[in-house]
Formats: sequence, C-alpha cells, structure tokens
Amino acid sequence: MALSTANSLSPSLPSKLASKQSEFLARIQSPHTIALRSPPSAPPSSLQLKRSGGSVLTASKVKSKICASAAPVMDQSVGEASSKVPTVVEVDLGNRSYPIYIGSGLLDQPDLLQRHVHGKRVLVVTNTTIAPLYLDKVTDALTRGNPNVSVESVILPDGEQYKNMETLEKVFDKAVQSRLDRRCTFVALGGGVIGDMCGFAAAAYLRGVNFIQIPTTVMAQVDSSVGGKTGINHRLGKNLIGAFYQPQSVLIDTDTLNTLPDRELASGLAEVIKYGLIRDAEFFEWQEKNMHKLMARDPSAFAYAIKRSCENKAEVVSLDEKESGLRATLNLGHTFGHAIETGFGYGQWLHGEAVAAGTVMAVDMSYRLGWIDDSIVKRVHNILRQAKLPNAPPDTMTVEMFKSVMAVDKKVADGLLRLILLKGPLGNCVFTGDYDRKALDDTLHAFCKS
Amino acid sequence: MALSTANSLSPSLPSKLASKQSEFLARIQSPHTIALRSPPSAPPSSLQLKRSGGSVLTASKVKSKICASAAPVMDQSVGEASSKVPTVVEVDLGNRSYPIYIGSGLLDQPDLLQRHVHGKRVLVVTNTTIAPLYLDKVTDALTRGNPNVSVESVILPDGEQYKNMETLEKVFDKAVQSRLDRRCTFVALGGGVIGDMCGFAAAAYLRGVNFIQIPTTVMAQVDSSVGGKTGINHRLGKNLIGAFYQPQSVLIDTDTLNTLPDRELASGLAEVIKYGLIRDAEFFEWQEKNMHKLMARDPSAFAYAIKRSCENKAEVVSLDEKESGLRATLNLGHTFGHAIETGFGYGQWLHGEAVAAGTVMAVDMSYRLGWIDDSIVKRVHNILRQAKLPNAPPDTMTVEMFKSVMAVDKKVADGLLRLILLKGPLGNCVFTGDYDRKALDDTLHAFCKS
Repeated sequence: MALSTANSLSPSLPSKLASKQSEFLARIQSPHTIALRSPPSAPPSSLQLKRSGGSVLTASKVKSKICASAAPVMDQSVGEASSKVPTVVEVDLGNRSYPIYIGSGLLDQPDLLQRHVHGKRVLVVTNTTIAPLYLDKVTDALTRGNPNVSVESVILPDGEQYKNMETLEKVFDKAVQSRLDRRCTFVALGGGVIGDMCGFAAAAYLRGVNFIQIPTTVMAQVDSSVGGKTGINHRLGKNLIGAFYQPQSVLIDTDTLNTLPDRELASGLAEVIKYGLIRDAEFFEWQEKNMHKLMARDPSAFAYAIKRSCENKAEVVSLDEKESGLRATLNLGHTFGHAIETGFGYGQWLHGEAVAAGTVMAVDMSYRLGWIDDSIVKRVHNILRQAKLPNAPPDTMTVEMFKSVMAVDKKVADGLLRLILLKGPLGNCVFTGDYDRKALDDTLHAFCKS
Repeated sequence: MALSTANSLSPSLPSKLASKQSEFLARIQSPHTIALRSPPSAPPSSLQLKRSGGSVLTASKVKSKICASAAPVMDQSVGEASSKVPTVVEVDLGNRSYPIYIGSGLLDQPDLLQRHVHGKRVLVVTNTTIAPLYLDKVTDALTRGNPNVSVESVILPDGEQYKNMETLEKVFDKAVQSRLDRRCTFVALGGGVIGDMCGFAAAAYLRGVNFIQIPTTVMAQVDSSVGGKTGINHRLGKNLIGAFYQPQSVLIDTDTLNTLPDRELASGLAEVIKYGLIRDAEFFEWQEKNMHKLMARDPSAFAYAIKRSCENKAEVVSLDEKESGLRATLNLGHTFGHAIETGFGYGQWLHGEAVAAGTVMAVDMSYRLGWIDDSIVKRVHNILRQAKLPNAPPDTMTVEMFKSVMAVDKKVADGLLRLILLKGPLGNCVFTGDYDRKALDDTLHAFCKS
C-alpha cells in the first residue's frame, strides 16, 4: 500500500539562511514575482452568511467576500448536517458566475439540480465506484416531478490512471450515440478525475455544452470542482490537455462523504491545508485545533472546512480566472506533486498525497531561501502528520525524475520554472521564477536518494 | 474519381408552392426564426479600403464595415499581385480581435508573422502535401532576423479522413515532447483540416496557447481560417468535438494558391458563393460575371473574392461569435453537406463539393416551401456549373443516411433540426426549425434513389 511510505521521516532541515531583508523587498517588486499577503483585518461579519432567523440560512445567493484574516469563528449554521437549506458560495465571473451549494441532504432537493439543467437531455458522467452508490439518487433528483428530462449515463473506470484521451472518448461516444444536442447538460458525479474529464468533455462536445458538478470526494468538494479547470493527463505530464470551462453550478452534498474511504478523505485535506498556508492563516490555525475533528468526520467541522475552502477558491478564481498570476498560488506543492504522480505512475498515490509531499518540499525550499522561519516548517509537518498525509515523496523518486517532469509543468514560461513558495509570516506566498536555483537543487537532493 | 457524379442532372424542380405572405411575416417574428436581409444601401466608400496614394493600400488596420449592398466595384488595389502591402480585414471581438492580412508575397514579409508570435517557441502544424512546398518558407519567415525564436514542426497526413482524435494526439505528443510552454505559439499551415486541428490543439494544450493561421487553400482562406471554429470529426459526425478559439492573426498569402489543385480551388468557391446567397446579393452578381476569371485563377479576381468573403465572415463572427443565431447562417448547405461527408466517407468528397450539393438541396427545399422563386434556383445551378461543383449528392446517399447524420447535427436543439434556408429576394436567408417537415422529406427523396 502506497501509504506505507507516507509517514517516513522528513530529511533533516537545513540551517536557516541569513535573512535578506533588502532582497526580500526587491523581490516583492520583481515583475516575475507576485506577492500575496493576508489582507488586513475586516469585520468578522464579512465571513458570516446571512441568517433568516434561528439557525436556518437563507438559500439566496450570498456573495463570497471572504477576508482571510476575519475571525475564525466556527459558523455553527453550516455545521448542522440535518439542515436542508444549503450554504451558497458564489463564484463571481460576470456572466459566467455560478453558485456552489453546500449542505447535507442536497441530493434530496431536486430543485437545486433542476434549476441549472438546460434542455431536456442530461448525460451523467460517473465511475464504477460512485455509480452503485449515487447514480440512482442523482437520476431521481434530475427527473422527479420533471418527466420531460431524460437521463443517460456513462460509467468510466475509477482512478487517475484513466484520466486520459481514451477514456474521454467514451464520453464523446456516448454523447454522440445518444444524439445529445447543444442544449443538453453534462453532470459530473464523482471525484476530481470525473469532474476534470466531464468538464473537458462538456467544453469540447459540440464546442461547448452546459455542465454541473456534483463532487463526491473532499478533494473535489474543496478544490477541483470549483473554478473551471478541466482536462486530462498526457502520459508525460498531468493536466496538459484541457480547457478553462465553468460549470452552471456545483452541488456539494456533504452526505456523500459518508462513503468516502479514509485515504481519500485525507487526500482532500491536503488542499484544505493549502488554503491556510497560502492565504488564510486564521483558517490554518483553525485546522490545527480541529484536525482531529476532521479526521473523525465530524459533520460540523467538515461543513465549515468545505465552505471556507470554497470561499477562498472562489475569491481567487474570481480575481484571476485564467491563471495569469494569482491563481497559480493555488498550486502550492503541486509542481513537485505532479512530478510524483507522473514519475511514480498515475494512480499510485492519490493527488492529495502527492500534493502533501510536494507541499513539504516547497516549504523546505522556502526555508532554504530564508523566506520563512522554522516554526512554519514544523507546523506544516505537524498538521500533515495529524492528517495522516505523506511528508516526503516515494523512495523511488529521483532528482532526474523530478526535473524531467517539472520541465513540462504549465507554469514554465520561456523555459523558466516558476514556483509557489511561502514567504513571510504564515498565510503569505509568492509565485515566482526569481529564486536561487541552488535551493531547488538542494531540496530535490534532500528528498531523493539519487 | 468522385467528381464523375458531380454534374449529374438535378432532379426536376417541384412546382412552386402558393405564396403565403401572411405566414412569411409571422415566421419572421417566430422565436425559432432568425431573418437575415441585405441591409439598405450604404455609401460605396464603406466597402473600400483606405488608400495612402496611388494604388498602395495602407497597412494600418482598416475596420471591416462591409455593407452587403455596397457597390460591387472591383477593388483594383487588392488585385495587384505584385503589391507587398497587405489588405487588412479586422475581426472585431473586443480584446480577442485580430487582423486578417491578405495579399501576394506576404510570406516574404517576416514582420507580418513575427509581430503575432508570443514567446520564443513555435510549433508549425502542417501536412505531407504542404510541408514540402511551404514549411521552409514559413520557418524562414518566423526566424529571419529573429534568432531567439526556435521552430518545431509536426507533419500530419493530408485529408479530412485524418481530422480525428488519433491525429490530434500527434500534435499534443510533439508539443509535450518539445516541452513547449504556455508562452509558445502554434502555427496552422495548410487547408481547413489543418487549421481546425491546429486550432483545437492550441485551445486545449495547457488549456490554451496562442496560434496563427496561414491558410493555403481557397476553402481555408475564405472561410475556415476566420472566426475561431476549431475541432475534429467524430466517426458519426463532422466537427462534433472542438472549441471556439480565436487566432492571433490570419495570414493569407494568395501566392499559395498557385500550387492548389483545380478540384481544391473549386471546392473553396462553394463558400464564396454561399456568402452571396445568404447576405450579399451584389457579391453574388459579381461572381456571376467573374466566375470565369476565378476559374482561370485571375489573381486580381481572387484577391477581391477572398477579401470580400473575409469581410462578410468577419462581420458575422463579430456579431455572433458563439453561434447563438446569426452565425449559423454561414452554414447554408452544410447540414446536408456534412451528411454527405459523413455518410459517403470522410475524404471522398472535398468539403466544398459536399457543401455545393448541400446548397442545391437547401435551395430546392426553400423553393418547395415557397420561400424563393425559381430564378434563384436556376442561378444557383448555373453558378455551381460554372465553378464545376456538384449539384446533387453522390448516388449512394440514401434518405436514411441523410436523416441519421442530420440527427446529430450541432444545429439540432431539443430534438428539432434547424436549417439555413433562403427566403425572399437573393441575399436573404433564415435559420429556422419552423418549416414544413414534408418539404424536407420531399427534398431528400428528390435527391436520393432510396
């Protein structure tokens, strides 16, 4: 089992480099560098959703105006798993804006899905693991009281190793054979792999049809289903072929986590931790105090973690949909992580496991550069340990494997590899190609035997 | 040779249906119908490009503000094949606007290409026919005086039958193996098949990189290279998988037509004729008088036909980029034509040959509906005969083959097949699902033996 290497000891930390305050400031100004800091304090109310009385949230769309340093109070209302009124986080993209519904029992509310279905034909894209669990439920939610809608489905093999052109063609084949026209709607029912493939298929089928995301894993609920990045892997690199294509809506029924294996659950937490590290120090601190609840699948804690993650993601995507800069910061640990997934073999480690190890490497490199102090390094190790996530790449990874895959990373520009690195106090990061190459080499050698 | 069936006699024309003036007006108002008429007269100057003196055109971008009924005078300046100053037609799409350069010897002007290359890496996508003719010339134009730019190329097999996922993967493979990053530029060098595939590859590679079109066929120069429709065929239907994705620029060197086979040349004229029929009566009349010059490859006549076609296309695309209505009118004859291409086998007939036969069928149906008078039917037959284009589908096509392919046409909406049909005086058409199904059946049976 791949996780046997997950908790191997991390390499010893290098001694902290001398602080370079003047260089620090200079780099903040560099055109190759985007600095991202937690914004100044804002009233706690900016984080809280409007209540219509008691503990019931209004279902009206509430604009996500999260402020990273807002008070990290627990929003009890979203934690009430029995509530049928969803929390709504809006992704603000002009005429392509859409809502993310979060809550328990949402698949029992047909209207939430049906209001976003265009046309009379629906194609549900799912996989062999999820179909037996939720396909009937989703089909019912799409058609109950709505006999004009007909639902087709295509059931793909489960796993990152199937996120390729060959599997994608099965979706196109089903759509064409079913004679779906431009007014149809694709529904992604599953984890990140299903969402990415279904989204890309929707982007390309007839040059674009509507689609809806119903993510069923923590990974998809806190990250991949939001923001419109879709695509498939190439055998030489992850997500190299795809499209920016936004869904009509994202429906997160937190009850679907009840059937999620522990390892999948932990994998998603790697992205939750990421939001804290790159832009939301208070959320990170909340996680440090509540990770045991998340690991125990406390519904209230999970609802809060999902909502706050979606708010962070929605804000970043609204500001930089096509990843011209800011959005790249969501990829903390992903450049190293993608190298692990590609080099070690798709499907060997889960995406979040690779991201966790990649985050440790990015944090290590940030520390070698003198950009963060060792307390952050320690806190990252601690929280990953709590989440039972890896803190080092698999033993078989070599420096050359990392370098070879990282060379085709999408963040390479004119031959220069840009990385997301932490810089400054907790909750701050930079996206930059302006770093000492030796630090990268040192990190790679520290984490690889050869 | 496929063209042996091209000039078979058309079926006898049905007697004209009784005129239904009140129904005509009602349909113009129908939400399923988009009426498109030639606009009222405008000053002839609206068609003419700005001159900087003598016969030399200014190279500055001249907004295409074509008016379909402007005086159809020959624009001598664009006909001067020796001129090195390009005519420029602008496609107006906000921040995705781009110029179409038209003229002789443009590939000898490196600046025209280089000004639109982003980054330092270029991938030229071409085919086995075009590569020996123009790849060196294009590579030279990309790199002359510009040693920082490196050029890779991928040479695909030539023909519509290769416009599929398997061939597309060769482009991705080359791009990934060459480690091209997001700042690279793809260049499509060839006809419509190359342009469509390279454009889709550019849309999907790393979720979108820049690309430039260098069309080398009449078909691509007057139609497919302009407007951002990209994609590949599915075995069950044409262009079912793709993207709307605009190029940085389109460079039309009319000298490339010197190497174009007669059959390919005629194929492109089907689209030229289309512009006249759907929206530009004066252009159609010009073609009636000048088709012999086009068939004799008169450079002056060709330069004018290309420019005026691009102006028509640019205007339509600017008004309706994503084909929500108006743009569909550019597909006159294409629904029948796609059925021929798919049913008869990709690559058996050229696209324009199938469109020509499809146009005859659409015109026949328009006449059966009583929407046009028989003079238009005769003029369409005459001009296609002059252009040595088919005026009926291949003998092997059956009514069932047509119906089966047309059912997956992209213009089907909620099960209703919408068609582009002529209605009213020359130069007017409608895009509608509101027609008598019997007329469609009658047309199919008139053109098929079974």
